Formats: sequence, structure tokens, C-alpha cells
Amino acid sequence: MKLVRFGERGSEKPGVVGQDGLLRDLSEHVADIAGDALGDLDALKDIDIDSLPLVDQDVRIGACVGNIGKFICVGLNYSDHAAEAGMTVPPEPIIFTKYNSAICGPNDPIIIPRGSEKTDWEVELAVVIGKTAKYVSEDEALDCVAGYAICNDVSERAYQTERSGQWVKGKSCDNFGPFGPWLVTPDEVGNIDSLDMWLDVNGERMQSGTTATMVYKVPYLISYLSQFFTLHPGDVISTGTPPGVGMGMTPPKYLKAGDIVTLGINGLGEQSQTCVDDE
Amino acid sequence: MKLVRFGERGSEKPGVVGQDGLLRDLSEHVADIAGDALGDLDALKDIDIDSLPLVDQDVRIGACVGNIGKFICVGLNYSDHAAEAGMTVPPEPIIFTKYNSAICGPNDPIIIPRGSEKTDWEVELAVVIGKTAKYVSEDEALDCVAGYAICNDVSERAYQTERSGQWVKGKSCDNFGPFGPWLVTPDEVGNIDSLDMWLDVNGERMQSGTTATMVYKVPYLISYLSQFFTLHPGDVISTGTPPGVGMGMTPPKYLKAGDIVTLGINGLGEQSQTCVDDE
Repeated sequence: MKLVRFGERGSEKPGVVGQDGLLRDLSEHVADIAGDALGDLDALKDIDIDSLPLVDQDVRIGACVGNIGKFICVGLNYSDHAAEAGMTVPPEPIIFTKYNSAICGPNDPIIIPRGSEKTDWEVELAVVIGKTAKYVSEDEALDCVAGYAICNDVSERAYQTERSGQWVKGKSCDNFGPFGPWLVTPDEVGNIDSLDMWLDVNGERMQSGTTATMVYKVPYLISYLSQFFTLHPGDVISTGTPPGVGMGMTPPKYLKAGDIVTLGINGLGEQSQTCVDDE
Repeated sequence: MKLVRFGERGSEKPGVVGQDGLLRDLSEHVADIAGDALGDLDALKDIDIDSLPLVDQDVRIGACVGNIGKFICVGLNYSDHAAEAGMTVPPEPIIFTKYNSAICGPNDPIIIPRGSEKTDWEVELAVVIGKTAKYVSEDEALDCVAGYAICNDVSERAYQTERSGQWVKGKSCDNFGPFGPWLVTPDEVGNIDSLDMWLDVNGERMQSGTTATMVYKVPYLISYLSQFFTLHPGDVISTGTPPGVGMGMTPPKYLKAGDIVTLGINGLGEQSQTCVDDE
């Protein structure tokens, strides 16, 4: 299933995209794509999707999961991206935070903060937790997954690395987390270790990669994180980005108002964001 | 006012402590001490608190704010604590995250993670945001504050600093955020720049400090953070700890099962936690 949240920000309704590619209203069957419902998505599989009410196909798409708990990001998790960042792959996963207030719809604008000169992009595979996980093994880990989605881990590099320790400042600006369009259930994603991923700026290909070169794989990450704290339904793990970020170019290339960022991952849909200056 | 959330974890009800020191049920007047209600606490001031129903005074006390958005922590924000950590005060505030799933009641047990050998304590003044703040000045900053509370910023030092970059791993273990007992409104706190704070382990004084030695003060922190992202009602800023953490002792001293941690800040009440091993 391709699950969607549509409507105005803060009051999104649940939806589903059928085989015909059309968005339909799922709100008679589930209150939201959030929380405990993420652990019981199988309950939705018997629904005759084609019989659900169609919605305006131009409606705003929201973040594909509501009421997110922890938004957990993994740094330097593609060996070739680590190289372009001038860093080595760490001996354990680097974990950092994107505050939930940054999470937005997949096609909402990227808001460039006042004074920002180094707003950058990162296409990432995000994993949505559906079941509580604590001290789980790698073998058990995928049982906890509700599905997968695209995240653009938008990053202000000066805020991230030049403004006194810890990356969260540069990762959590408003709208720095386009997330969606779809939450795709594992049965539809197939092999998560061979998904192509790409990102364009103004139509020019910047990132081109595959999850095949991910260093710490999804089962390892879930097991690893669950040694530190409990993972709950509605937690999200964004698993890092392949090469091609603006920071790694010579000279570096950053986003400015008017730029259009498009990105996608095989089977998970596409995002498109227009960059705007903060008011 | 001294606002409280009481009852079982996850289904706490709002309460208030009156002049007589007794806890009373506030749920007929507000649904929760959370979200937009934090911006309108003045609406509760005309209530005749002594007429509210008493509740069992031995009831569990929960975290003093529900549905927290961002739990933002400030590192090395007391010059003498920075010295004991072997670090210098940074040129800008160090910001890191404690994930919300770590936040618990003020007297809930400290759960020592499996294999942990360096679980440490940090008494901190926490600021609760009541009104949306973006690009606010220092002069405007205190208008956004709903109140103040105690946070024990429990920290696993090996996870924080020896397990590959970023502190969040060592700050977000389950129950690593005792928070409360009270959310005290600013009118009752008085001068936030001269609050005494202390922390004992098994009755022995470990931390003894005052907010007078805080480097980056509350108005500065609110203004600073609001340059990076919007602060929303229900966000919390924990402002750093004075000297006396276990990591800074010679030899270092860490918590083990059976230890009892008590801590307090003038006017904000006290916390007491028993340390337990994770099951």
C-alpha cells in the first residue's frame, strides 16, 4: 500500500493511492497514518481501494506520518558521501536529530532561513517504525517496520558545523524535512538494499546513488538504536544520503530562492520543492 | 501557580498545588498542561484553587508538560561545569537533543541501560515555551515563557562521547528525563538569575550551584534558538548544569542500581529517583 496524508498542514487526513495512481480518502477506515495504527497496517489490506471516495488530486500532500515521536537521522552512512564530506565512515553509526517541527509535506517549500548561505540537500531513505522495539536483534528488526518513505534531509551547513557543536541547529530549521509523499508498506518496496535514489536541482542531476552502498543497513540500525532507547510506533529513522550534496562540490553549491529541488527513490515516489526566502 | 500532571504514565490529568501544599484536580478547567493551553495559563488564575477536588496525595506525578514538541538541551552553559568537563565555554550555545521518549515523571526510576557503566546526573533549570517564537529579540523572549521546571538531564557518558559523534545517544535512554514536579509560572519564580540548585546521591551533596553563573541566560537562549527554528507552545529548553557531575570527579563516580538521586531548585520543588537496572 501507498499511504498518504492529505489536506491542510496540521489537519491532514489519511489517504491511499490505488493501482490507478489516484488518491482516495481512507478516513473511514483509520483516523490517521500515525501511532498504533502503524503497527496494524495489515488491517487495511482487505479494503477495496477502488471503492474509496476520490479526493481532489491537486490537494496538498502532508508528511506521510503524523504525530512523529523521534525523528532519528544517521550521518555519513554512505562511504562515498563520507569521502566527499572529507570524513571517514565512523566505527558506529552517527546519530543526530531533526526536530519534528521541521517535518513537512514532500512538496512544501524549502524555507531558507534569514542570513543562510549554505542551505543544502540530501535525498534519504526513511524507515517508519510500526511496533515497539527495545534490545531487538537484527533478525527481529524488520518486523518492527511499518514502511518506507523519502526524506529530504535539508541541512544548513554553517549552522550544522560552524556554530558550536552538534548538528541539530543546521538540521531543524522550519520545513527542513520534506517527508513523503507515500508511506509504502514493505511488501510493495521489495529489496530495500537495491533502491536507486536521485536528486536534481533545477533539472540538473546532483545526487545519484543506491541503497546498495549504505554502510549500516536498516536491520542493523534498528537493532543498534534499540540498544540505547525504545523505538515506538511513529518513530522515523532517516538512513543517510549518497554522494552529490552541495557541500561536497568544488566550489560548493547551495540553494537560493527560486531553485527547484526534485528527488525520488525507486518505488517510493517523488518530491518537488521550491526554495523561498524566509519572510 | 504550580501546575502538575498526575496519574498513570500516558494518561496523566492536570492538577495544581494550592497554598496549602495539597494537590488538586484541575481537569474541569483545562484538558492538559500542554500545547496551546500553555499560552493561556492566565485564564486559570481566577480559579478558587482551594475549592477544587483534592486528589490522592500519593498519586504518581508525571512530567509537568504533556505532548512536548522539541526538548532542547544546552551544553556547557555554566563556566565552572565546562571547566570540570575539561572543556571551554563555547562561543555560541551548544544545542543538543533529548528525545521526548526519555521524558518521565520527576520521581520515576532512573533506568540504567544494559551494559551501561557511566550513567550520570545533571540538575537543570528547564524553560517551557508558551507562545510561538520566531526571530524574537532578547527583549521579547520572556513573553514566550509559560513557566519553569526542574529537569534531571541524566546522561550516559560513554554513549554520549565514546560511541561516534553527537550526544543524543547518551541523553535519550528511557527515563533519562525526569521533568517536574511542577510547572511554575514566572510570577511565582521571581528572579530566574539567582535560583539555588542542588543534587544529592544517597544523601551526599554532589551538585551545588546557582543560575547566577549561567553563561547564556534564558532570554538570550530563546532569542538565539528562534533564529534557527520556530519555538512552539510545549517546547522545552533545558539550560545546562552547574558543577558536580560524576564525570568530573576524581575518580569519576557513576550511578548504580539502588542509588537514590534527589535534586531541587529554589521554588521549583524537588525530585527523587531510585536507580534500577534495565530488565
